Amino acid sequence: MERHLNRSRNNSKRPKNVVLLGSTGSVGTQTLDVIRALPDHFRVLGLAAGRNVDLLASQIAEFTPYRYYAADGREPANSGDCRPASLIELATLNDVDLVVAAMSGADALEPAIAALRAGIPVALANKELVVMAGEYLREAAEHGGTEILPVDSEPSAIWQCIRGEAEKPKRLIITASGGAFRGRSWDALRSVSPEEALEHPTWQMGRKITIDSATLINKAMEVIEAHWLFDVPYEQIDVVMHKQSIIHSMVEFQDGSVKAQMGPPDMRYPIQCALTHPERVENPNLPRFNPIEVGNLTFEELDSSLYPCFDLALDVAKRGGTWRAALVGADEAAVDLFLDGKIGFTEIGPVIEQGLAAHQPIMEPSLRQLTEAASETATRIRTAISVLKG
Amino acid sequence: MERHLNRSRNNSKRPKNVVLLGSTGSVGTQTLDVIRALPDHFRVLGLAAGRNVDLLASQIAEFTPYRYYAADGREPANSGDCRPASLIELATLNDVDLVVAAMSGADALEPAIAALRAGIPVALANKELVVMAGEYLREAAEHGGTEILPVDSEPSAIWQCIRGEAEKPKRLIITASGGAFRGRSWDALRSVSPEEALEHPTWQMGRKITIDSATLINKAMEVIEAHWLFDVPYEQIDVVMHKQSIIHSMVEFQDGSVKAQMGPPDMRYPIQCALTHPERVENPNLPRFNPIEVGNLTFEELDSSLYPCFDLALDVAKRGGTWRAALVGADEAAVDLFLDGKIGFTEIGPVIEQGLAAHQPIMEPSLRQLTEAASETATRIRTAISVLKG
Repeated sequence: MERHLNRSRNNSKRPKNVVLLGSTGSVGTQTLDVIRALPDHFRVLGLAAGRNVDLLASQIAEFTPYRYYAADGREPANSGDCRPASLIELATLNDVDLVVAAMSGADALEPAIAALRAGIPVALANKELVVMAGEYLREAAEHGGTEILPVDSEPSAIWQCIRGEAEKPKRLIITASGGAFRGRSWDALRSVSPEEALEHPTWQMGRKITIDSATLINKAMEVIEAHWLFDVPYEQIDVVMHKQSIIHSMVEFQDGSVKAQMGPPDMRYPIQCALTHPERVENPNLPRFNPIEVGNLTFEELDSSLYPCFDLALDVAKRGGTWRAALVGADEAAVDLFLDGKIGFTEIGPVIEQGLAAHQPIMEPSLRQLTEAASETATRIRTAISVLKG
Repeated sequence: MERHLNRSRNNSKRPKNVVLLGSTGSVGTQTLDVIRALPDHFRVLGLAAGRNVDLLASQIAEFTPYRYYAADGREPANSGDCRPASLIELATLNDVDLVVAAMSGADALEPAIAALRAGIPVALANKELVVMAGEYLREAAEHGGTEILPVDSEPSAIWQCIRGEAEKPKRLIITASGGAFRGRSWDALRSVSPEEALEHPTWQMGRKITIDSATLINKAMEVIEAHWLFDVPYEQIDVVMHKQSIIHSMVEFQDGSVKAQMGPPDMRYPIQCALTHPERVENPNLPRFNPIEVGNLTFEELDSSLYPCFDLALDVAKRGGTWRAALVGADEAAVDLFLDGKIGFTEIGPVIEQGLAAHQPIMEPSLRQLTEAASETATRIRTAISVLKG
């Protein structure tokens, strides 16, 4: 707790020391864009990447962290004084002020929990971690006397709207763009290609999240994430279709007043909001919101018959225990198989459902049992499809 | 200051003691609607009315305040134990927790300042008071260690959006419905009747403010009010046309993130928000916001050629000194004359302009000089028109 207080006191005096887990992905590179635009505000202490060591090497050259992590023990070229470290070591380096967890998959879960328990705030871009282990992350933040800072645009919007409010919200209204295939019937989507599914109408994002947006599993995961991050019951979380992706979410308070957070659909906004928290800093590189240019904002009911995966994911999530982790693993495998051309777009839902049918839930799981539930479910699905389709 | 702290500590323990100045007008009766819906939250200590003593008498019977004020020393029937008091006495009664200033004209100015100086928060519905004497109100609130709580929907929206934010906003974006004649050219409005001008498309409000909405002087006054209430320079306050009156205003922060406050166009929302501050309380009588029902929100540029009074009012306001007070007086007289059929709708602007041409400004006025500037300008205009038009 004392460490936490020192941290806050120092925030505005010196650059914030940042460790970025997942520096070569979509959120990771955009995080470095923000840091590049605000050089006086940040110092990069550590970078962790997956297999893209070439990009990691150039990031090390530019940002000169003193520790790095690369998956499978790979070594970036010319890393100079920058030494390898484990993910947990990175996340709990001395003098870290903020850990950004932007790695896909479950690898950032243990480091995020370690950072939170040590009193280091974690900017969380990977909603799968909250879906899998929301209770563990929340408990770790409470233990460390620190905060989970949402990076995804929808929970960031909710987080921005509730600040300064004394009471719990009455209702969260999460907006959904509808993804690449909005307005098209599920039946018409049997033969769409991965390339078509990767054409998101409003957001530039990673491949997995873009497919999750097209199935609306991403939106179901945001509902689950909001439930855990903001401690709001599921029945007080609504989803509304909002094609323009300008209003990123809304919060209704006890007296019926509603606040919305809005802005151009650009991930650098919510990333920066988490990075500079509790300050807000001008970034000349970001497009400016112009209501006249926007012109028109629409809201429509979510037709869940067009998005069968949405109800499936929420139903599974509400079962508790290891079910949410199994869902994350099932979705990861199904999306991979679709992107690899092994299953069709409309098979994503049925494959998830079948993969989950064999899940043996543990109702009060350990952290390890959660990550195992995810990986076992993913493996089960990959094996079954390779048996069926080669 | 000590008094103020006691006040806050008690807020949630016992009903809030309220004095309502202007109980028979539009905001006054809606304030009593809110109090009626939340009987455990409020106790009415005092009511002040203008000439409608019949309505005041029935309000006294229902809410049993122990002091009242009626203009011109009128006496409401059957006031029982409720005794008359001056406006200043009402506003500074022992144990008052909140003064609601909802009287039209400048009569509530001195009572509001007295309350603020005594550490009593003032919910301010009458924007003319801020336009006239923003610096005095601000100084009084600082002296008393208390707050001015905006009641009008636009400043209430801004107030709700900035709470919990560490930095000053970068820009305020005030929304304008455009009033009764939006989209119609000024020339086409020469012969419109007071009845037509009183048909506001989205809001139910008093007569003066509805005409001020049709000329957009009301919007200019909101810009001036926001400048004083939130200490934001004029060049950082924009107005945007938003016909649906759902988004009540927006705030852009230093990092470009925008927050909006929204809800059905119903004055009871912002009134209640000020009354229950810092709490938010469920009111079953209020319509609930439904984004699907709303469907579509539009933004358009304000075409100030359609609203010549808008630029006129802002230009005058920026001159400082007694000019803002003179503007308030001139507008009050011009609107009265229009409602009485003495001048046409399109003469409101020229009459204000001519009335202000003879104004002898005082650049560092006393409070009395401000109220005199308003009343002298109003009288000058009324006299001139009666000479010209009988």
